[in-house]
Amino acid sequence: MKKFEHLFFDLDGVIYLGNKPIERAASSIKLLSENGFKIYFVTNNATKSRSQIAQKLRGFKIKANKNQIISSAFAAAQLAKKLNFSEAFVIGEDGLKKELLLAGLKVSSKPKFDKKAVLVSGLDRNFNYNQLKIGLRLILSGSKWIACNLDPTYPVEDGIDPGAGSLAGALAFGAGKISKDGLLIPTYPDYVVGKPNKNLLSDFLKENNIKNALYVGDRIDIDVLFAKNLAIKSALVLSGISKKSDISFYKKHYNISPDFVFDSIADLTKYLID
Amino acid sequence: MKKFEHLFFDLDGVIYLGNKPIERAASSIKLLSENGFKIYFVTNNATKSRSQIAQKLRGFKIKANKNQIISSAFAAAQLAKKLNFSEAFVIGEDGLKKELLLAGLKVSSKPKFDKKAVLVSGLDRNFNYNQLKIGLRLILSGSKWIACNLDPTYPVEDGIDPGAGSLAGALAFGAGKISKDGLLIPTYPDYVVGKPNKNLLSDFLKENNIKNALYVGDRIDIDVLFAKNLAIKSALVLSGISKKSDISFYKKHYNISPDFVFDSIADLTKYLID
Repeated sequence: MKKFEHLFFDLDGVIYLGNKPIERAASSIKLLSENGFKIYFVTNNATKSRSQIAQKLRGFKIKANKNQIISSAFAAAQLAKKLNFSEAFVIGEDGLKKELLLAGLKVSSKPKFDKKAVLVSGLDRNFNYNQLKIGLRLILSGSKWIACNLDPTYPVEDGIDPGAGSLAGALAFGAGKISKDGLLIPTYPDYVVGKPNKNLLSDFLKENNIKNALYVGDRIDIDVLFAKNLAIKSALVLSGISKKSDISFYKKHYNISPDFVFDSIADLTKYLID
Repeated sequence: MKKFEHLFFDLDGVIYLGNKPIERAASSIKLLSENGFKIYFVTNNATKSRSQIAQKLRGFKIKANKNQIISSAFAAAQLAKKLNFSEAFVIGEDGLKKELLLAGLKVSSKPKFDKKAVLVSGLDRNFNYNQLKIGLRLILSGSKWIACNLDPTYPVEDGIDPGAGSLAGALAFGAGKISKDGLLIPTYPDYVVGKPNKNLLSDFLKENNIKNALYVGDRIDIDVLFAKNLAIKSALVLSGISKKSDISFYKKHYNISPDFVFDSIADLTKYLID
């Protein structure tokens, strides 16, 4: 496995679980760096800016700066900039707004309903009816809609909570069409930048001419599929959502399976530097 | 058309527009009653109880009592009772809660996660993240979900606002599954009681042995489809959403068309009593 030079790590379930670091994550990242591997962190989390994510990692004694981080909030902001939007209405938290401001967009709670405005949705734990109303009116008046990700839920200490995908559902159904059978068919976002869509990482790989990359994640349905979409190798670690018993299920029903499987980042590291 | 004895009227777009009565609606209903027609009102509106709707009609000088009214909130409450649920967690406003209480259910903001609890969703203009979280956890723990209706939007004075279907989208996407293509596929409610589903009226027609009914509505995609699903005749009035030019579109693409078309309830009335 020495052929891998660039390692891309998912965060939740690989490096930490919520606010608790995974055992030996910090020492593993340190060891890998010392052995010449280039380290990156990839996350769908849209509530924090890249700087805030780097700060969280440093809080776990993991050396990290924002240039190592690829997040769906950052990617959404970069896409909005690339598409020449000047104003964003955001269903999302401060980290997402920060990335949009850094990308040069104006963040407005009362957007103009014109072609220069874009709707950007992420996770917002203060989501309310008034936001939904403004976002929906933007879509229905023809504005473009960028979703950071469509994760239906995310794990929290006492269970699971609605994710960015759940909130997007309110917009998608509100803008939906009634089929001839009377069923409401959702209207999906114009752009979804997060995993498993390869857009989150494909430009980065291209711009940096990276070919020998390994993607490390904890979910077969999202992370392994993401690596497959990017045509790079994947390692599954069993320290998060997916269990060993899930592997055969996804192989059979989804035709995807990880290239490597490890119990955790510590075992992966041992393997890589051996 | 004298063969019709029972007339079922949609409300918004037929009898009133928001808080404004349609011209000659009150005198038309009076005339029809005097000529022996039995009058009923049918609405997907889930924010008001039947009593509150009757009161609104009386405010427009239309004689109405709650027994003439079939609403999606009432139907949802009756279904919850029929299915033997004892406790409801409600994403909805006071009218829906009132109907559930009248049907003998307990309405709880902190439901027990057991088989006796049901999630009931309607329109709630105070919708927030915490409600979504509880509703989603109920679905994911196996509770049944009754939706009053899946109307994506509804008309308000300054445009259109998210409807019960939009809010349901947040639950449907939160409980959704990621397909092998990485798309989030919604999980629909276990029961949808509102139009165009025939459930809203089919029991009523059966119990009262009503065969010669005419349904009067303003939307081809919902009202005319609803009548078709019930196998009763439909009259479209052009005082609400659907325009004359929509008729050929829906005939071609949806294979539905109204049996009769009138400019408004006044013209329908003239035709019926002539």
